[in-house]
Amino acid sequence: MAQQQAQVKFTAVKPQLMVKTPKAVDAVNFYKSAFGAVEAGRSPCCPPPTAEQNLPNILCAQLELAGCSFVVYNDDSAPEKIEGIGNQLCLETDEVEAAISKAVSAGAVVEGEVTEGGGACCGGRVGKIKDPYGYVWLICSPSNKCAPVEA
Amino acid sequence: MAQQQAQVKFTAVKPQLMVKTPKAVDAVNFYKSAFGAVEAGRSPCCPPPTAEQNLPNILCAQLELAGCSFVVYNDDSAPEKIEGIGNQLCLETDEVEAAISKAVSAGAVVEGEVTEGGGACCGGRVGKIKDPYGYVWLICSPSNKCAPVEA
Repeated sequence: MAQQQAQVKFTAVKPQLMVKTPKAVDAVNFYKSAFGAVEAGRSPCCPPPTAEQNLPNILCAQLELAGCSFVVYNDDSAPEKIEGIGNQLCLETDEVEAAISKAVSAGAVVEGEVTEGGGACCGGRVGKIKDPYGYVWLICSPSNKCAPVEA
Repeated sequence: MAQQQAQVKFTAVKPQLMVKTPKAVDAVNFYKSAFGAVEAGRSPCCPPPTAEQNLPNILCAQLELAGCSFVVYNDDSAPEKIEGIGNQLCLETDEVEAAISKAVSAGAVVEGEVTEGGGACCGGRVGKIKDPYGYVWLICSPSNKCAPVEA
């Protein structure tokens, strides 16, 4: 069955970070200053917020970092606190400590010590930070010890 | 202060999907057959599982898709069910229906109808599937209506 299906080509994988209203603009600014992400575009809300609501008019913004994209979504139903989350985002860099320091300057909180990860898929040295919106980022030295796939 | 900090260069952004033991190998195979992801490498457990444990010897595997990487992690502490998750992954493709159909053949479950997303950051037409490991994927037509960033 599967072989008969058309090949499907994907053009992008984009993590989506849901951020509770009205913090989406703050989150976009945080990812720019903490990680150097570049904003590729943003979409306004439709319909726009009313004057009484006094909310920033942003539905989502696309950010580019290290050749990948992620999207910050303004989501009123996003949880206030993200607990027991099943996934997190790994950022690879040769400058683990400098990256953590920069993120902390921008408002992130360090979680634990930088550890030697044993060369698993997410790098040899691994630090963990939590951003002001509840997302956990692993700051890792580049992975280079993944075993080749066995045939 | 921020200007005085060294520029930090990130070389990759990798979502990490935690999958409860012993399903990590199943998950890797699912992402290959459902999305056409390519395995770039995997790391064994250290120490390896004992014969009595009878578990697959995989700590993590790195998968490549649409020029990005993501990592499946074998994590005994991963939640059985992922509820109220704050982030999800968007996959862009011109073939939304074919992609959903292929993923469903591989074991994913459709959540709702394909809708017109109004051209927000995650594409014009958007379908949603949940994979057998609890992760939600948006299957979207490529976004092309993000407004340029205002200066």
